[in-house]
Amino acid sequence: MSETHTLASYVLASRLEDVPDDVRREARRSIVNFVGCAVGGAPHPAVDAAMRALGPYSGKPTSGILGRSEQLDPLHASLMNGISSHVHDYDDTTPKNYIHPTGPVASALFAYASTTPVRGRDFMHAFVLGFEAESRVGNAVFPAHYDAGWHITGTAGVFGAAVAIGRLLGLPQQQMIWAIGLAATQAAGLREMFGSMAKSFHPGRSAQNGYAAALLAQAGFTAGEYAIEAPRGFAAVQASAYDLSKVTAGLGVDFNLRDNTYKPFPCGIVIHPTIDGCIQLHEAHRFAADAITAVRLRVAPLVLDLCNKQIITTGLEGKFSVFHGAAVGLARGRGGMREFTDQAVNDPQIKRLREMATAVADPSVTEDQSRIEVDLADGRTLHTFVEQSLGNIHRPLSDRQLDDKFRDQAVLTLPEAQVEALIPLCWQIDELDDVGAIVRASVPTAEQVAG
Amino acid sequence: MSETHTLASYVLASRLEDVPDDVRREARRSIVNFVGCAVGGAPHPAVDAAMRALGPYSGKPTSGILGRSEQLDPLHASLMNGISSHVHDYDDTTPKNYIHPTGPVASALFAYASTTPVRGRDFMHAFVLGFEAESRVGNAVFPAHYDAGWHITGTAGVFGAAVAIGRLLGLPQQQMIWAIGLAATQAAGLREMFGSMAKSFHPGRSAQNGYAAALLAQAGFTAGEYAIEAPRGFAAVQASAYDLSKVTAGLGVDFNLRDNTYKPFPCGIVIHPTIDGCIQLHEAHRFAADAITAVRLRVAPLVLDLCNKQIITTGLEGKFSVFHGAAVGLARGRGGMREFTDQAVNDPQIKRLREMATAVADPSVTEDQSRIEVDLADGRTLHTFVEQSLGNIHRPLSDRQLDDKFRDQAVLTLPEAQVEALIPLCWQIDELDDVGAIVRASVPTAEQVAG
Repeated sequence: MSETHTLASYVLASRLEDVPDDVRREARRSIVNFVGCAVGGAPHPAVDAAMRALGPYSGKPTSGILGRSEQLDPLHASLMNGISSHVHDYDDTTPKNYIHPTGPVASALFAYASTTPVRGRDFMHAFVLGFEAESRVGNAVFPAHYDAGWHITGTAGVFGAAVAIGRLLGLPQQQMIWAIGLAATQAAGLREMFGSMAKSFHPGRSAQNGYAAALLAQAGFTAGEYAIEAPRGFAAVQASAYDLSKVTAGLGVDFNLRDNTYKPFPCGIVIHPTIDGCIQLHEAHRFAADAITAVRLRVAPLVLDLCNKQIITTGLEGKFSVFHGAAVGLARGRGGMREFTDQAVNDPQIKRLREMATAVADPSVTEDQSRIEVDLADGRTLHTFVEQSLGNIHRPLSDRQLDDKFRDQAVLTLPEAQVEALIPLCWQIDELDDVGAIVRASVPTAEQVAG
Repeated sequence: MSETHTLASYVLASRLEDVPDDVRREARRSIVNFVGCAVGGAPHPAVDAAMRALGPYSGKPTSGILGRSEQLDPLHASLMNGISSHVHDYDDTTPKNYIHPTGPVASALFAYASTTPVRGRDFMHAFVLGFEAESRVGNAVFPAHYDAGWHITGTAGVFGAAVAIGRLLGLPQQQMIWAIGLAATQAAGLREMFGSMAKSFHPGRSAQNGYAAALLAQAGFTAGEYAIEAPRGFAAVQASAYDLSKVTAGLGVDFNLRDNTYKPFPCGIVIHPTIDGCIQLHEAHRFAADAITAVRLRVAPLVLDLCNKQIITTGLEGKFSVFHGAAVGLARGRGGMREFTDQAVNDPQIKRLREMATAVADPSVTEDQSRIEVDLADGRTLHTFVEQSLGNIHRPLSDRQLDDKFRDQAVLTLPEAQVEALIPLCWQIDELDDVGAIVRASVPTAEQVAG
């Protein structure tokens, strides 16, 4: 049996009624998280550079871009949405395959929906199917594919975008198979790009290329029909070991959306438990930062391998300093976008705490854990132990925490009132008559842009 | 030493004066061959489908397309040029790495030159450098990369296009390095697509993506700086074995253009020696096709493995039938585009010869050779032995033969007079003040298109 054909058949036969409620709920959460990230990332210099480079080559500007005032053709808008959504490394992750899954699929879908009216329920359904295709193709080649150096968000993402857009276009079976083939033959993205803007290019380009794959297939542009499983197809060419059964096993029953997770803090994931614990201490005891006389951390050894810098001057360095994470959690009770700026890193109060803190690598502490002790000037010693990192699959962000994360990012781009109107619109996505409304509601007004 | 940095430095430091005459001559021959192929392929249904799918998303139509009357933005024009140039599988090949090298580089350059005036000498220089970058990256990963299932024309091609356009844009070193990085992270194309339109999509998309890589780098969009040689860079990720020294050894001295070859016939390469020998017999003896009473071939065993069908009805099947190749050579003294149509395959005279012919697999005959015997009604037996296949590196097409090949393809798209004007323009490319003139001269008039 052909995995490519089975996947295409499933995508065409699926009805939204067949998608369980918990999966639809997680789809909604994924969309809320995505829109917040894309709006927050939209003013980033990487998006500005991509706009300067490719904006002049855009086709008819029929599509809005999340969080930006320009319009582009929907293919270019897909690219920009994808860059924005990933540029702060703050988007979602499915831990079992390391994919940042919503970006490639939703970036294309919002661009499409901004050009062509799409009902919320059709959008959600296409999103669930695209997410599923992307995840399953990724599951089949993980971990060999990722370990070899592929950025799986790019390589698997293009399948998700092609399937999602193909579904909205109403492609028949043969064309859906070609769309998957044209996705496979564009699957790309190297981990060597990590640390540069090109990392965020990957979800963007995979959204754009998957969208183009669906359009080409619709016009009768043919492709190989066994693109996933053939001896010279995606899996065999891009992974030294793979399991094709993962493409099709449990289709329509086991939904990968159930495994999605959302980062609570815009920084290296191994320092999350420490930030989380420090925020808990801050909230429980409401001490002034000046009152702190010592900070002692016990963390997993990997944390100090990756994030042990204490003398730092930039926000980017702060994202990879467990001491900085502790300092902002204790001093501000927050670990949001504003805590990882150059300004925050050079705040004297934060600097004092960061440089005072000590850390011990303790093999009995897992990477999801952190043990924290804080001495106060009044003689008290506070301590806490974080057993599961906030945001991991066992301790997911609550809907309210997703709202806070959305706000934290979106207020960098939009006025608060606009942010507060945008959040409920995203939660109500299933009920919208025209999902383009979300894109329109995310656009800064001319005055904001000028300011 | 970084191969990426060395390659970028070479590209920036090179002067056209440093390119030897024989290399410039071969560059001219490559361009002539390319333009003929692109003009001949331009009306193909694959290009029509790509135009229907993506034309509506084109930016400002500032660029012509070789052999077509529409205009597109130069990125989309690059794609169309590349599809046209490869869709008949009639373009050039460097046998040592299986790349069809001119398509990805020249497709982007002609689109660029059609939008922005470029002097012939600058165009030629950028072409030589792009060809070199593409070939060297390909040499480094060949054969493991190709054997694994990568269509190396797509994967290496994107480097060539990025470097060539980057050179015309005048990118400084840092940006050239980013352009190479953005090319590497878009390198794609699976051999599973062979036999579908998606095969010709590869040189087109690599041209378009390499062009975009150069534009993004110019705008300050950053990328990994060791894209070719890093542990998670192109070579390590896309080849199980590779030799990075091939990227840089002999740069500026050993030019890969010297290894380029041009197909004399638009069909499977293993039947070329048979067609060639049959044409030689036809030209030497000028017999009528009716006068032939027997045809006996002795060919390399691989020929009968791949091309032994005798009962066929379509032009596509004819491209992979050694008997059909023999028949058209003997009956028409030609093996051009018109000899591989459905009409030619169903021509009763051709059919009679094809079905009369016999072939023996002879291990003493190489794949570049063919031994042919023909009995005539007057009792004579003619024979010939082809020792080196026309078009291989030891018996290259003459300039006149390249002209004939150009004509054979271009007259399917353009009136003869226009073809005869276009050929010398291509040969004079170095001296043109504006290479866009070639694109303009290749455009069918409105009446031709309507007809």
